[in-house]
Amino acid sequence: MLVCTMLVFIMALGFACVEAGFTQAKNTVNILFKNSVDLSVGIISYAWFGFNLMYPGEFNGIFGFKEWGIQLPTDYTSLGYAGGAYTYWTDFLFQAMFAATCATIVSGAVAERIKITSYFIFTFFLVGLIYPVLGSWHWGGGWLSQMGFYDFAGSTVVHSVGGWAALAGIIAIGPRIGKYVNGKVVDKPGSSVPLAVIGVFLLWFGWFGFNGGSVLSADAESISLVLVTTTLAAAAGAIGGWVGGYILFKRYDLGMVLNGILAGLVGITAGADKMSPNEAILIGLFCGIIVVFSAVTMDKFKLDDCVGAVSVHLTCGIVGTLAVGVLGELASWSQFVTQLTGVAAYGAVAFSASLAIFYGLKFTVGVRVSEEHESEGLDSHEHGIRGYTITYDN
Amino acid sequence: MLVCTMLVFIMALGFACVEAGFTQAKNTVNILFKNSVDLSVGIISYAWFGFNLMYPGEFNGIFGFKEWGIQLPTDYTSLGYAGGAYTYWTDFLFQAMFAATCATIVSGAVAERIKITSYFIFTFFLVGLIYPVLGSWHWGGGWLSQMGFYDFAGSTVVHSVGGWAALAGIIAIGPRIGKYVNGKVVDKPGSSVPLAVIGVFLLWFGWFGFNGGSVLSADAESISLVLVTTTLAAAAGAIGGWVGGYILFKRYDLGMVLNGILAGLVGITAGADKMSPNEAILIGLFCGIIVVFSAVTMDKFKLDDCVGAVSVHLTCGIVGTLAVGVLGELASWSQFVTQLTGVAAYGAVAFSASLAIFYGLKFTVGVRVSEEHESEGLDSHEHGIRGYTITYDN
Amino acid sequence: MLVCTMLVFIMALGFACVEAGFTQAKNTVNILFKNSVDLSVGIISYAWFGFNLMYPGEFNGIFGFKEWGIQLPTDYTSLGYAGGAYTYWTDFLFQAMFAATCATIVSGAVAERIKITSYFIFTFFLVGLIYPVLGSWHWGGGWLSQMGFYDFAGSTVVHSVGGWAALAGIIAIGPRIGKYVNGKVVDKPGSSVPLAVIGVFLLWFGWFGFNGGSVLSADAESISLVLVTTTLAAAAGAIGGWVGGYILFKRYDLGMVLNGILAGLVGITAGADKMSPNEAILIGLFCGIIVVFSAVTMDKFKLDDCVGAVSVHLTCGIVGTLAVGVLGELASWSQFVTQLTGVAAYGAVAFSASLAIFYGLKFTVGVRVSEEHESEGLDSHEHGIRGYTITYDN
Repeated sequence: MLVCTMLVFIMALGFACVEAGFTQAKNTVNILFKNSVDLSVGIISYAWFGFNLMYPGEFNGIFGFKEWGIQLPTDYTSLGYAGGAYTYWTDFLFQAMFAATCATIVSGAVAERIKITSYFIFTFFLVGLIYPVLGSWHWGGGWLSQMGFYDFAGSTVVHSVGGWAALAGIIAIGPRIGKYVNGKVVDKPGSSVPLAVIGVFLLWFGWFGFNGGSVLSADAESISLVLVTTTLAAAAGAIGGWVGGYILFKRYDLGMVLNGILAGLVGITAGADKMSPNEAILIGLFCGIIVVFSAVTMDKFKLDDCVGAVSVHLTCGIVGTLAVGVLGELASWSQFVTQLTGVAAYGAVAFSASLAIFYGLKFTVGVRVSEEHESEGLDSHEHGIRGYTITYDN
Repeated sequence: MLVCTMLVFIMALGFACVEAGFTQAKNTVNILFKNSVDLSVGIISYAWFGFNLMYPGEFNGIFGFKEWGIQLPTDYTSLGYAGGAYTYWTDFLFQAMFAATCATIVSGAVAERIKITSYFIFTFFLVGLIYPVLGSWHWGGGWLSQMGFYDFAGSTVVHSVGGWAALAGIIAIGPRIGKYVNGKVVDKPGSSVPLAVIGVFLLWFGWFGFNGGSVLSADAESISLVLVTTTLAAAAGAIGGWVGGYILFKRYDLGMVLNGILAGLVGITAGADKMSPNEAILIGLFCGIIVVFSAVTMDKFKLDDCVGAVSVHLTCGIVGTLAVGVLGELASWSQFVTQLTGVAAYGAVAFSASLAIFYGLKFTVGVRVSEEHESEGLDSHEHGIRGYTITYDN
Repeated sequence: MLVCTMLVFIMALGFACVEAGFTQAKNTVNILFKNSVDLSVGIISYAWFGFNLMYPGEFNGIFGFKEWGIQLPTDYTSLGYAGGAYTYWTDFLFQAMFAATCATIVSGAVAERIKITSYFIFTFFLVGLIYPVLGSWHWGGGWLSQMGFYDFAGSTVVHSVGGWAALAGIIAIGPRIGKYVNGKVVDKPGSSVPLAVIGVFLLWFGWFGFNGGSVLSADAESISLVLVTTTLAAAAGAIGGWVGGYILFKRYDLGMVLNGILAGLVGITAGADKMSPNEAILIGLFCGIIVVFSAVTMDKFKLDDCVGAVSVHLTCGIVGTLAVGVLGELASWSQFVTQLTGVAAYGAVAFSASLAIFYGLKFTVGVRVSEEHESEGLDSHEHGIRGYTITYDN
């Protein structure tokens, strides 16, 4: 568990690299700043109240709060964790990393034009309030867990919640200047493909911790099975993204392969412990293809998602959650209906709450930088340095 | 074991970074695409048949096949793994990562001019057929293991097999345009030295899992000794590469230091559990120096290896395997002869099979891109994007 | 412990990335060369004598030496390590990584103008002699440990020792040409902010091993508490750096956020197992702010530290060590005095010994490259390649 927690941490770096790699060089420092501070604000607010909103103990199933802050070491023995497989402290850290993950999903989607103060206010609400309250419905023992909803490691609880928030942000803020011109989608190439590759592989690596740790025990059989399904889904996702990208664009599209890997990972997350190897491959392949079509569809509706976050986390989060009712050990009609209920309930609340906050910000402090700042880049205006200074003049 | 498997995974990223760092910027996306898809195709084909070719159970010692696909969890208990130190699933995953490693060795060597379809066809044969069948000779309980051949974690089984395949590819495909002009070797600088450094350190990091996990138990004493020899060999390899590079080129050649690290790692891999600290240093130092001379010799024969893969993996794989007969616990004349037999047998089959496949491809679908594509770069033609877009114009 | 050792290794990559990211593109290869060779020379010299200088067994409390080299596996059982939680070999490897860490602190501070031979000679003395002898005073059972000095994982023993050495180097070598002109500080932008971010996050990741492993047992409760305090201090450090940077420069300074993270990590290291979550946050926040003011103060005295190493490792190393006497379980006036004694003793010896070596080098082989080399960059002169070759001309 401790090792898994450390691995989940590296996902924060993975997200930072993916987002910096896929966005334009003039906004590199901005996106890295957001990801670095995000993580920090997220961890501390989760420590002060998020954790106790998400795991309130006895509660009404919809909203509960235990106490302020995390406990001192002397208290933890009374909490009786799974035969000693992990401690209260490990649990907090593991969950805090999940919460921070949820926040970083948004940052990539609305990159290159969001006002930084508004972004941090939104993050604070998402990590401190929306995510933990919604999380308590399932992992905190709330109404969805009582109903039999199954989401092993967070296809819905983490990824689609982040994805809904990202979608709300995209709608409220609008597309980047010059992204959609005369019905055409203008390509805005990211600064560094190698950086994006580093990010995706670190995410894959971190996902071993994300899914492996969600077994919440040191049972080697279960963990190793989960790692196998996770790996196969990611690999199949890559192939799905390759094929999907080739069908649509007639080229070997590395961006789609990378998003395919992430799509496969998000898709398998809900049922990683309930699928056979071939079912995992099927889910990964399907998610890898669907993510390409989702990205194209987003552009059709002029929903400008700089890094494809909504397609990866929301679309594939939903697909993966529903797949638990269709494939694997739990497959049944009633399970499918339960999964659908969970997806819908999470979607309704996460999307509408996020939309409300974003529009609230829009009509008060504003959510968007000035046109001048956007076209010249956020780095020179807000941060005073460039992301890359590769020059050999003295 | 699980942790080690995760670490071995990160080697895939390490290879991707080294190869992208050491090849030209106009082919960055291409090499990253190959490495990403490689891993995915490799894992899935290994799951479907590679694993059961490599570990066929009872067989004639040369070729055996157990069944299609990997097993469901209920079956694994009957397989009786080393007192529960790891599961069937962990074993599969660990071995699949090794197989994928073998494939990525080739991609760097033949980069910047190989046709992508031919490359994937070759990879499929290498990971799905050549590697597992050859692997079964030693690790699957085949004839070389019965003879007493010793290769702890794959100096020969993994690295030299990949190295032979790379050499066959280099011969079949020929050097890059403009690499050898009027008897001179023309330098083709890689896109990013920091990227290469990241790659080499991630490989070193992953090697802890590669060698540590090959102990195939959780015995802390054995694992920790193996990590010490691995680390000392890598460190000595760096110094060897430094010295070797300084002697030949009269400068502090970072490329040689990095290849020296990898050389030391490959060299110690065959006998990591049988060497004392000073023997590990000796092997690392020797490999670090020899890798420099090997690279220069390759160029003399106009064998154009973009990243030095043959010198690192083949030359040092052989040296390391033979070293088991010369130094450490097993050193003896008869062991040396056995080691030599194994090296020769693996070389004969891996090289001739690879050469046959590459020439088969050459005279059918072709192995090389057009001159125009090669000189303008593979990225713009096959992938439609650039690896780096670092510009501050609006 | 083994896992933690592996994580500490990745800190070497973290330092390399931070330093290459924060220094100018014309010196990228040079700094990467130094970091790669540093680690290798450090590990081997620590194996040959450093380890046995630091853990001499019975000794006079100030200086002792056990024997040359590390032991063979058969000897280790007699050493009786903490109920089998780790082996002699693990211990060596873990400590060797710490020693190498100490050396890399210096390389960033004096980058871009130090003569490479002088640098390696200094490193050899630091890792082989100064660090282990000073380390023996506390961790080897010497006089400071007998006095009750407390430094859990090395705020003083590792970080401030490296920081004092860095400060001595800065003084002996002098600022870069053109850094301070007419009383103004000239900005010398680093080559790649994403690279620096990768470095800082890898350091944070590695710090889990650094602090977690320093528990020197597999006790999940203690380790998980240490990881929580470590994480919270880093997060609070980021916020401290954000706020500090905003106050001084009126912009969102990512460099300060990154140095704030490292400052928080260095600060918590001395008392990571003795602090409550809120105390950890307080220490991190304070270090994050102080590091900004320390960096500005350094510049005021024309002490040119390319990456802010002295502010991070020395200033915050001292603050963190003293904090053990002020906050947490051990807080008391007498403990504070003991901490101050330790800080002063380490500072006096580490600084004066380093200064003596640097001045000794200055008046013999020289410590600084020629003006021409410095202004044209070390890469083209000493290494013959560029760090980045991002061009799309054929």
